[in-house]
Formats: sequence, C-alpha cells, structure tokens
Amino acid sequence: MGLDGLGSSSYGPEAALTILIPLGALGLVYLGPVMGCIIALLAILYFSYRQTLAAYPTSGGAYAVAKENLGEYPSLLAASALMIDYVLNVAVGVSAGVGALVSAFPSLHPYILPLCLIVVAFVTLANLRGTGEAGWLFALPTYLFIVCFLGVIAYGLFRIVTEGDPTPVVAPPPLAAATGAAGLWLLMHAFASGCTAMTGVEAVSNGVGSFREPVIRNAYITLTIIVVVLALLLGGIAAIATSFNIGAMSQTEEGYQSVLSQLIGAVVGFNTFYYIAMCSLLCILCLSANTSFVGFPRICRMVAADGYLPKGFAQPGRRLVFTAGILFLSGFASLLLMVFGGITEKLIPLFAIGAFLTFTVSQAGMVVHWRRQEVKQPAKLAMNAVGAVATGVALLVIMLAKFTEGAWITLVAVPVTILLLRAIKSYYDGLDRELRQSGPIVLEEVEPPTVLVVTESWNRLSERAIKFALTLSPDVVAVHLVRLGGPENDEGEKALREKWHIDVEEPVAAKGLRPPRLMLIPAPYRELHEPLLRLIEKLDADAPERQVAVLIPETVKEKWWQKILHMNRAGNLRKQLLKFGGPRLTVVTVPWRLSRQEG
Amino acid sequence: MGLDGLGSSSYGPEAALTILIPLGALGLVYLGPVMGCIIALLAILYFSYRQTLAAYPTSGGAYAVAKENLGEYPSLLAASALMIDYVLNVAVGVSAGVGALVSAFPSLHPYILPLCLIVVAFVTLANLRGTGEAGWLFALPTYLFIVCFLGVIAYGLFRIVTEGDPTPVVAPPPLAAATGAAGLWLLMHAFASGCTAMTGVEAVSNGVGSFREPVIRNAYITLTIIVVVLALLLGGIAAIATSFNIGAMSQTEEGYQSVLSQLIGAVVGFNTFYYIAMCSLLCILCLSANTSFVGFPRICRMVAADGYLPKGFAQPGRRLVFTAGILFLSGFASLLLMVFGGITEKLIPLFAIGAFLTFTVSQAGMVVHWRRQEVKQPAKLAMNAVGAVATGVALLVIMLAKFTEGAWITLVAVPVTILLLRAIKSYYDGLDRELRQSGPIVLEEVEPPTVLVVTESWNRLSERAIKFALTLSPDVVAVHLVRLGGPENDEGEKALREKWHIDVEEPVAAKGLRPPRLMLIPAPYRELHEPLLRLIEKLDADAPERQVAVLIPETVKEKWWQKILHMNRAGNLRKQLLKFGGPRLTVVTVPWRLSRQEG
Repeated sequence: MGLDGLGSSSYGPEAALTILIPLGALGLVYLGPVMGCIIALLAILYFSYRQTLAAYPTSGGAYAVAKENLGEYPSLLAASALMIDYVLNVAVGVSAGVGALVSAFPSLHPYILPLCLIVVAFVTLANLRGTGEAGWLFALPTYLFIVCFLGVIAYGLFRIVTEGDPTPVVAPPPLAAATGAAGLWLLMHAFASGCTAMTGVEAVSNGVGSFREPVIRNAYITLTIIVVVLALLLGGIAAIATSFNIGAMSQTEEGYQSVLSQLIGAVVGFNTFYYIAMCSLLCILCLSANTSFVGFPRICRMVAADGYLPKGFAQPGRRLVFTAGILFLSGFASLLLMVFGGITEKLIPLFAIGAFLTFTVSQAGMVVHWRRQEVKQPAKLAMNAVGAVATGVALLVIMLAKFTEGAWITLVAVPVTILLLRAIKSYYDGLDRELRQSGPIVLEEVEPPTVLVVTESWNRLSERAIKFALTLSPDVVAVHLVRLGGPENDEGEKALREKWHIDVEEPVAAKGLRPPRLMLIPAPYRELHEPLLRLIEKLDADAPERQVAVLIPETVKEKWWQKILHMNRAGNLRKQLLKFGGPRLTVVTVPWRLSRQEG
Repeated sequence: MGLDGLGSSSYGPEAALTILIPLGALGLVYLGPVMGCIIALLAILYFSYRQTLAAYPTSGGAYAVAKENLGEYPSLLAASALMIDYVLNVAVGVSAGVGALVSAFPSLHPYILPLCLIVVAFVTLANLRGTGEAGWLFALPTYLFIVCFLGVIAYGLFRIVTEGDPTPVVAPPPLAAATGAAGLWLLMHAFASGCTAMTGVEAVSNGVGSFREPVIRNAYITLTIIVVVLALLLGGIAAIATSFNIGAMSQTEEGYQSVLSQLIGAVVGFNTFYYIAMCSLLCILCLSANTSFVGFPRICRMVAADGYLPKGFAQPGRRLVFTAGILFLSGFASLLLMVFGGITEKLIPLFAIGAFLTFTVSQAGMVVHWRRQEVKQPAKLAMNAVGAVATGVALLVIMLAKFTEGAWITLVAVPVTILLLRAIKSYYDGLDRELRQSGPIVLEEVEPPTVLVVTESWNRLSERAIKFALTLSPDVVAVHLVRLGGPENDEGEKALREKWHIDVEEPVAAKGLRPPRLMLIPAPYRELHEPLLRLIEKLDADAPERQVAVLIPETVKEKWWQKILHMNRAGNLRKQLLKFGGPRLTVVTVPWRLSRQEG
C-alpha cells in the first residue's frame, strides 16, 4: 500500500524539471520555489486526508465520500476520474520504470516502447495468476528504495554542506542554453507537472479496508510515512539538483538519463550502488503500476454495487469478471503507451488531471460532511476547505497549463465515462421498474398448454419426452422434423404414421388419454427453429389465449469428448425459440443421461 | 485440380538426387535408370487409375473404392492414410516452395522455418475466408509453370543435342567427392524418394466430383495431362541433370540451391526468366499445399457420413466444423514443419508412405471390383492387379528404405488414426442401440409432476412463472433462494411469507386451485444448484415415482450489451441441473423478453 506515493516521487521532480528545460541552467533557480509550493500542497493534503481517514474508517475513497455527501454526479465524477487514473497509473508507472532502466543501460534506449509493453504483459500475467500473499516481495524493493535514495540524498546534502560547491563524480550532461524566459506561465507548468508526485496519496484512503487492526492507526502511520518520505525525497532532490546542476532531459533523446539517475551519478558515481538503487527504482515503479490491479477491481466493485456497472462486477470472486477487469486495465494502458510511445512526460498531463479531480471532489465532500455533523468542528471543516481550495486551484492550474498537452483527453474521457455509467444505471432502473410486482397475482383461465414434442426419429428419447408431455397436458403434438420432401419420403411418411398409430396412439388411447397427434414438418438442417416457429404461429392463430410449451429432448454431455461427438442441436434450438418465440412460448428441456439412464 | 501432381514433380527428382549425394558425380549415372523405373511405375498407375475413374465416376477416392470392395478396415486404412497425407502435403508443399524461394534469394536462407510458417498462416487465412471462384488465380501459375519448365527442358535438351557436352551458363556447385559406393540399397532409397513425384495422382480420383460435365472425359483429360507433363518433367530433369552435372544439395546447407534452380541456372543463367520460373514454382507448390484444404474436408465429410468422425463433419456448410478442420490441418502441418525445421527432404519419407498406402489399397479394391462383376473383364482386372502389385512393391521398398528416416512416424500414426475412427464409430453405434425404440410406448401412471418455481425475488418474472406452473400441475412449490441466514433475515422472511399469503395463496385459493407452497432455502452465490438438488432429493424420497420439473424464469438477451449487463445465471442453473439432476428431473425455461413483454 502506498507504493504509488513513493513511486510518484521519482517522476514528480523529473516532470517539473522537464518543463524547466527551456530555461537552461537558469531553470534550476526556480526549482526550489516550485518544489516548495508542491511540498506545501502536500502538507495540506496530508492533514485533510488524515481527517478523511478518521471520518471514513472503512474505505474512505473519493467515491464513497462524494456519494454520501455530494450526491450522484459528483460521486460519478470521482469514480470515473479514479477509474481513468488507475489506467493511467499503469502506463505512467511502467513507462517511468522503463525510463530508469534505459538510464542505467543506455543501449536499451531504442526499445522503450517494446520494453514497456513487455512489463505490462508481465504484470498482467502475474495478476491473472493471482499474486497471493507475497508481502515481502512488495516490501523488499520498497525498503531498498527508501534506504538507497534517502541515503544518496543525505550524502549529497552532506557533500554540499562540507564541500560548498561540490564536484559531481560523474558530471551530468551540460544544460542547454536558455531558449526561453522564465514567466509565471512556465512556473505554473512546472508546478502542474511536479504535482504528479502527489498522485499516490489517494491510494491510501481507497485501500484503507485492507489495513490490519487497528485500522485507523495503521492507515495514519502509512500515510505519515509516505508523506514524510515523499517530502524528504522531493526537497532533497530539489536541493541536490540545484547544487549539482542537474536538469531534465527529454526521454526521446538518445543517451537519456532520468533526473534520479543523473543525481546518483553526480553524488556517488556509476558504481554497484548505482545499479542497486536504479534496480530498486525500477521495481518500485512497476509495483506502483501494480497497485492499479488491486485498486481498479475494488472501485469497479463499489460502483457496480450501486448499479452503475454490470452487476457481475459487484460479486467478489467471479473469475471471469475479475479477468475482464484486468484485461481491460492492461489493454487500455498498453494502448496509451503505444499512442504516446512509452514516454513518461507525455503521459503525465493526462494523469495529473484525474488525480487532482479526485482530491478536490473528496475534500469538497468532507467539507459537506463536517457541515452536516451535529457537533460542529470548525477546525476540521476549515482544514478540508483549505484542502479543497488548494487542490482545486492546483487542478485549475494543471488544466490551464496542460490542456493542449493531453489533459484534454482526460477532460473528454471523464464525462464520457460518466455518461456510460449513467446509461448502465438507467438500464437497470428501467428493468427494475418493469419487473416490479405490485399487488396480488392475476389469474386468468388456467388451462393446460399445448405441448409440442420435437423429435427427429422415434426412439427412446422421444418416448420419454412424449410420456412426460402426457403428464403436463392432454393436448400433445409430436412434431417430427423431416429432412427433405420428395416422392421416396412419402413412403417413409406413411410407414412412420402407421408405426405411430400402433406404437403410440393405440396404447395411449387404451389408457383413456387423448392420443398425441403426429405432425411432420420439413426442416432443412441448421434451421430447425423456423418451421417450428411458423407452426406455433398457426397454433396461436387457432387458440390465441393458449400457452405453448415446446419439449426438447436433450442428451446431457458429461464428458468433454461427448461435446465434440454430439452437436448441440437441442441447445441451439432452445436458444432460437426463446429468442424469437412469442410471449406465450415456453421451452421444456427433457434431459437424457447417456449410458446411465434408468427409466 | 491436379496441381498436386505437378508440384510434386519438382521435389521428386530433388529427393532422388539427395539420396545420391554420397556418390558424388558418380550418382548422376544412376539417376537415369532410377527415373526410368519411376516413370514406368507412373505409367502403370496412369492406366490403373483410368480404370478406377471409369468404374467410380462419382468420387472414386481410395476410401470409397476400399469401402465398397474390401470392407471396413481397408477403407479405414485408406481414410487414415489419406488424412495423414493431406496434412503432410501441406507441410511438404510449403517447405518445397520456400526451398525454391531461398534458392532464388539466398539471403533468406536463415529464415526457412519462419517463412514456412508464414506461408501456412497465409494459406490458412485465405481458406478460412473462403477462396471463392478464383479459377484463373489457380490456372495462371500452373500454365506459367508448365510453359517455363517444359521450355527450359526443351532448350536444355536442344543444347545437349547441338553442343554435345554443353557448358552451363551458371555452373552448378561442384559435386562432392564420392563418400560411399553405389549399392542396390542406395538405389532403392533413391527410387523410394523419387516416388514422391507421384503423390499427386490420387488427388484427381478424390476430386472427380468437382469436374464439369462430361465428368469422366474431363477427369481422363486432366489425368492424362498431369501424367504426361509429369513424365516429361521427370525425364527431362533426369537427362539435363546428368549432362550438366547437377546434383542435389542439402537444404540445411548455406547457399542451398534446389535442383530446379541449378537446372535453370545451368541452361539459361540467372536472368529475368529465372526469377519468373522460380516464382511460378513457388506459386504452384503453395497451390499444391492448398489442395489439401479442399481435399481434407471432403474426406472428413465422407468418413463422418459413415459415423467414423463426429457427425458435424458430415454436414456441408457448417461454418464451425469447417473452421475446425482447416485449423486442425494447418496446426498439424505447422507442427510438422517445426519438428523438421521446414526441411523438405526430412518430410518426404513420411509423405511417400501415406501416398503409396492409398495407391495400393485403391488398386487392390479395384481388383476385387472386377472380380465381382458379372461380365468378367480380365484385361482390366490384370491392369489393376499389376498396379496393386507395383505400388505394393514400391510401398515395401519405401517402408524398408525409409523406416528410420521418419517413415515409422506415418506407420505409427496410421493405426492410431484407425483406432480413433473405430472408437468414434463404436460410440455412435452404442448410442444407437441404447436409443433404439422397439415396441409400443409403455405408460405407467400418468401423474402431473411436482413443479418447482425458482425465484430470487417476488416480481413479474416470478409471477409469470407461477401462473404457468399452475397450468402444468396442481402441485407447485415456489423455491425462494435466500442469500444468507441470520437474525435480520428472519424478519425479511416473515414479511415475505405474509406477502406471499396475500399476493399468491389467497388469489389462487379463490380460483379454487391448490395454492403453491413457498419454500425458502439459503443459497450462496454461484452455487444455486446445490441446495436445489438437495431439495429435489428430499422430494424424491417422499414421492419416489413422481417427476420433478424445475421452472426457471430467464430474461431473453437480444442485444450484445444485454449479455454483458445480465449474468447468465438462469442458463448456468439449467446446465447444472441437467447435468447433476436425477433421471426424473426436467427443466422448464420461461422466457421473459425485456421491454416488449406483452403479458
């Protein structure tokens, strides 16, 4: 949990520095203040989210908070922003991880996109198989990452303090000459990009249900650790990057080095430690992508339980649905990676929008929550209000700064998703209204139905079906499907009618029952249902109020090879009759268990 | 039709020469006599098959001939040999075609296997889409091939006659020094390999149904053309290869040149004509692979009509079955290509066995055919007897010479296939015996069944089901599936029972009918059928003779999105009940058409 938050600390500063590229070396001057703003925002978020956790100890995600306090549309806004962000989180995490990889091994640079797709495929397969309880597998790279990077930052700061103006062990690539002037606009851009560093915070409140007892305390601790580590990393990176003259490079450039890669190189050089640290970075970013595979089904389940997604998603443990969710997630993430060539900096604008949308909706929901409480807690209300305003302003800045760089995609996708969720909900609502029963049962004439027994030849299967039909209704018609007409078939028909008379009509009449009629109708292969439906229409015309039940004898296939050896004709016929038959048609399936039928 | 026969003329001589490699230049001396034997055998085959065509003008394939004249097992032998050979024909045709390609473009040599697989995939896709009536598409490369190669051979022979000892335009690679001595064994090998050239002849008699009227005349003409062209090609290739010192190379060798490639190079050089000729060779070999995709479904249809393959294969135009056949064919061919690395010379031993098995069985069948005729035709009988003996001897030679080189695979696969076909037949026969009806219907007590109506909530769906159930039987039980027990559910239960009393029991009793009972049974999700089956068992214990009908209301999904929005719970429940329910259980499906239900 919260791996998201740590992973994002690596691409946050990177994204901010990328925006400052046009300023050249001058840009670094502004890095400190921009990071300061981001850390301040982080602090506000921290305190607001502490309150959310306390108020909603069981799953205090933005969707739940918005649903309770703000009503349907804000909750759908939060839900769709979250769902879209889970997809983007996979794409961003994987592409940043691959960015770390190609920094360490520059020869892999031409293969960024294929590497991204391979990592997505790998994570998908691992999740399809079920990751199980591999807690240490997740914990190890996380601790390694924290130790490595806090260590490097501490050592870097130590060198800055002791050496004054330290010489990098491996000099970072020289910064380009300034090609633009610093303006408020550019700084807003940098701020907007750096904000991505905070995207992981929401994960804690969504995942609060999976913490151990005492839940709130554990969630508090996790949130605190994440925010403190994140702040230390952001601040440290900003300080060191400024002192060592480290700027961002475009990921599309040959010889690309991520900011963190340059940073370790400058502080300690490209030694074994460097490779360990970069490896932990790759792992943590892939794991942060993995959190989506936990979070996405969870949000889908919540939304489906309210009827905004197919009901199947609301049932835990439905293998097929679970698989569908994972494939949807990895499919869309792969698509995004392909569209943007696996370049992190291009994906980030899309991502930040969704994250800050959910922040703002969630905080706004909390404000309403506090207002509704009987015991007023103005301090808490104020805190969440500050949070809502701060994240709202940040959202506006991001929207303005990043609109043309891809943010518009998210801004289009969110309402489209909302419309889709609404459409699903209104379908279920309509169905509910249609089926709702009010008042007692209305009985018309209770008359036994006409029972049609479908046979292809006169054998024990059809004998059993006829016997059963006689128990249901006195009006039984055996419909014998004949392949093709023609003169020679006429004789077969005559023989069949005679056999029918002796074998069926006479014994039934002897029992004092009305003997079943035999009807021969020609039916070409594969279209058994059409002549049957025509016959039923005719029967309907004769007795418009009468129900019609079609009896289909079906062999039960218990072994896989029986499925191959028998064509599923009975099943197909049933499907067609149900689909095209009128409202008074019912299909009765009489099973015949092969080779252990008793009677 | 018959493209097979022409395609095989290219790898026949090649295969024979490959065997002669160890003899070095000396081997060429023996090529003439070996080819002579092969052409003599071809002549015998030609006259025997003419008689087969005349006697069985509608589909005179080996299976049909053997079935009529020799009985079950010989016909199955022919059928399985034919089916296996259709698979091998794809593999051999494609690998020989790719061999021609890499001869023309030696830089493609490392990619033989991938190229083979791509060609198989291409042919498969074309056949899945349906090749339609593209007659000219097939005819053009065939005519081109005939014109090119007969032209080259004629020009080569002309040069031999005029120049005496002609100099090759492009010298073929020098022949290796002799590493072995010529012996009868080696010549038998060469003969066995060269016999592959004849594999295409059977295709004409299998495909005779698709000729235009007058069928026999057209089949005669085709057969004659194929055999004459084949003989000319074989003889010409042998003569030219001997004069120009052309020997075979191993396809695995770098710089591999097929015999035909060397031959054109030696006679006319590597000019534009060379590339046109090689291109026509590639096309004709791919088309010869394609004949399998026509022939394989046809033989499957014949065999399935007799009950030796799943009945579905016997129905023309069943898309699914057709697709299954094509995928089976290309899957196995690809597997063979992968196992043998796409090398033609390794596949040929497997292929020749199957072809000569069918020749021999078919000829033997014809001998029996003539013996059974009232008007004796000793000449015809003798002709077919000669054919049977000659192909039988050739089969023996091939088996002996090629056993360790892969022929054993075919010799194992044929009986395995026969056993499988027999097993399928005996399954169908057993089923037939089990279901056969003898004598009149036996009626015990005709008593209406107990009808269980499965409901999950009391709505219009269940109302309709209850109303229908009342028309079938006075003994109706509504089974309400309850999710989970517990104290709060007890109250829900009480409310439900009260509602049931007012809404159902009272109105039904007022009509003078026995009111349906309400039973509440707890059922966890996904396992609806288990508690139901337990209930049915209990009912069975109470009234062991009584039939039980389970009524399941099912919403009819007419749109694809409805299938997503509704889980197919009714369908799953029906499947489970049919599978696990006792012999007296029947399932009734009451359809509910969404949003246009009338009553």
